Amino acid sequence: MTTPHTPTATQTLGLQAKQASALMAKAPAATRNAALRKLAQLLRANVDALQIDNAQDLARAVAAGLSAPMVDRLKLTPKVIETCAQGCEQLAAMADIIGEVTALRQQPSGIRVGQMRVPIGVFGMIFESRPNVTIEAASLSIKSGNACILRGGSEAIDSNKALARLVQQALIDSGLPAHAVQLVQTTDRAVVGELITMPQYVDVIIPRGGKGLIERISRESKVPVIKHLDGNCHTYVDDPCDLAMAVSVADNAKTSKYSPCNATESLLVARGVAVRFLPLIGAIYAAKGVEMRCDAEALALLQTCPDKMMLQPATEADWFEEYLAPIISIKVVAGVDEAIDHINQYSSHHTDAILTTDHMHAQQFLREVDSASVMVNTSTRFADGFEYGLGAEIGISTDKFHARGPVGIEGLTSLKYVVLGEGEVRN
Amino acid sequence: MTTPHTPTATQTLGLQAKQASALMAKAPAATRNAALRKLAQLLRANVDALQIDNAQDLARAVAAGLSAPMVDRLKLTPKVIETCAQGCEQLAAMADIIGEVTALRQQPSGIRVGQMRVPIGVFGMIFESRPNVTIEAASLSIKSGNACILRGGSEAIDSNKALARLVQQALIDSGLPAHAVQLVQTTDRAVVGELITMPQYVDVIIPRGGKGLIERISRESKVPVIKHLDGNCHTYVDDPCDLAMAVSVADNAKTSKYSPCNATESLLVARGVAVRFLPLIGAIYAAKGVEMRCDAEALALLQTCPDKMMLQPATEADWFEEYLAPIISIKVVAGVDEAIDHINQYSSHHTDAILTTDHMHAQQFLREVDSASVMVNTSTRFADGFEYGLGAEIGISTDKFHARGPVGIEGLTSLKYVVLGEGEVRN
Repeated sequence: MTTPHTPTATQTLGLQAKQASALMAKAPAATRNAALRKLAQLLRANVDALQIDNAQDLARAVAAGLSAPMVDRLKLTPKVIETCAQGCEQLAAMADIIGEVTALRQQPSGIRVGQMRVPIGVFGMIFESRPNVTIEAASLSIKSGNACILRGGSEAIDSNKALARLVQQALIDSGLPAHAVQLVQTTDRAVVGELITMPQYVDVIIPRGGKGLIERISRESKVPVIKHLDGNCHTYVDDPCDLAMAVSVADNAKTSKYSPCNATESLLVARGVAVRFLPLIGAIYAAKGVEMRCDAEALALLQTCPDKMMLQPATEADWFEEYLAPIISIKVVAGVDEAIDHINQYSSHHTDAILTTDHMHAQQFLREVDSASVMVNTSTRFADGFEYGLGAEIGISTDKFHARGPVGIEGLTSLKYVVLGEGEVRN
Repeated sequence: MTTPHTPTATQTLGLQAKQASALMAKAPAATRNAALRKLAQLLRANVDALQIDNAQDLARAVAAGLSAPMVDRLKLTPKVIETCAQGCEQLAAMADIIGEVTALRQQPSGIRVGQMRVPIGVFGMIFESRPNVTIEAASLSIKSGNACILRGGSEAIDSNKALARLVQQALIDSGLPAHAVQLVQTTDRAVVGELITMPQYVDVIIPRGGKGLIERISRESKVPVIKHLDGNCHTYVDDPCDLAMAVSVADNAKTSKYSPCNATESLLVARGVAVRFLPLIGAIYAAKGVEMRCDAEALALLQTCPDKMMLQPATEADWFEEYLAPIISIKVVAGVDEAIDHINQYSSHHTDAILTTDHMHAQQFLREVDSASVMVNTSTRFADGFEYGLGAEIGISTDKFHARGPVGIEGLTSLKYVVLGEGEVRN
């Protein structure tokens, strides 16, 4: 199944992607949208065939003894495939942003200067597990006029190959270059090392997966990387706040789902409301089986909690921790200043929220918290490209450079200056 | 003069800058603008004193046998100082962009999502020669709410130290942290290596100088770099075009100044107008002492040139060359398609222009030329932050990531998402 992949083969993928990217950048929006709609059709027409390929991955996963949740993530059910198809159609229906010229203004010399949005060129995406990412990445790449090289995980190789064949068919049927979306056909790990060190072919790398993978790629890449390492998100319950709203949001932010990067991992509570707020949220967390790792003050206030087994003292390490599990750290703070200081010190700069009725505190929190998303009176769980109206999401960036926060089509583009003159010369 | 600079000293600069950056990000626009106006005052009040410090650099340069143009670039004349002071005042008068929230829109869930412009944090600038860059970088840093670490060339160390003292005085007098702008006080080359490998303190590096310096920094930096390596700019004379305009612009693009990165280094001429255009521009270039390195077809058409000494056959290397000198490469092409192909192959993606009266050709050139600035009917010499209305320029980027083209205050900022809710939770 695994074919040998010489360095030359990866270079060839790069050269082909580069050549395809020039054609994609020129392709009319109508053609790119037609390819997306064609891909949706092909996905629906191949539900059964896709499940045969997917079954090979699933059988291998079960034989390898992967956990049930891991096997679940690999499944290409008819529902997952339909969601992929709808995603392609939604992208096709979105307004095109390639070629958009903004802020064209005349300067004192007479020249008119603006900026045109253009594709980045070629992106390389390295991801693990879920095969539907192949379709998400391919469709975003087509919509944004880029070319891409996709390197999925070995556990999903048969599903990914089957999906990539449909993508290439959709491209060819629409008159676009087949090399606009290429899947690395081997599971040889050396390919990742090559992919991230070809600046002549690849303009940006987007890794999605475990922290170890992303750290290694960031360290070794010779091209820019759009990434996030951690989602240590905070919810701060301010004094004053709407207690009922604070309980509802703090509950949702932690317990609606434990595994996403935008789940709240640390709860900060202002001293003035802690005595009323903590017993309320503590009862809910305990009932849902959420372990609370508390500083001394929070621990004392939570002694009303019906299930003492759910209470633990926090260590310094807890303030840094992204649990991705039914565990939350809890700390009582003096007020908004201490909350901001704590967040800027311990947060992973992903998403942090304040729950407050004080306008000045809300403004200060928005200005001073140095994170990709800062929120007032809502759940950190909303930090997501779809919820932000981006249409789709290729990833979430906790870097400050280029894209920050959920990354959609705009994050896969760049702005070049356009200058229109009537023969002006410079003195 | 050169004090020893241990790794700890550079780390200390980094830590101090990081701490100052948090205060700068919070500082009101009025305070940052007051510091800029104070700096303008101090520059004017210290014209004589600055020239005493500058004289030490000049004496050293002359003793070291530097060329007259090199010595000239080091001079802090009263005129240069006045230009610096005016630059500070212009920045102070510009609208503030820090904290600006754009595109705040309500999403189906009820949350309102927008983006807030915030400072990047800390930038490190590495530059050579001209000491006025110290004031340009310091003033842009103050305006954009960042902190910076400046590392000037050893040839200007006394001038730079004197200017940096004035900057720190202006910061302190305005109630801003003195460490918001720090000059590296030593000329030890090892400091550059440290500065570009402190991602915990420095968010971006901006090198300005020779290609060798910039290549080394790009290769070794552990943080993002805003840079341009080359300015191999093209002017393409299309068929049809306004001949008189084409001659005027092609003249200006090459001969108004030879040393800037936005000077045209290569002239492409459509076959249909070459027989009329080339003799006209050839006579002007020859009269101004510009050597023309031509392909065979251009060479034949330029035989009318009064001074044959100015004509040379071009080699393949000429198409890549950034001369920064009274030399230009000239090639006859079939039309706009070949011109675009040639430019995308040989250009340094800095600035390229088409001179045309054909609307479709202009649109195609703007869309398809993959450069930071693409121009119609004007001189490549306009590629400049001031001419583009950015107010000031910290550099020009030929990268596609983050900032592209002339980089002003916006390029020193990042956008974070702000999310405003009324208690919404996610399903």
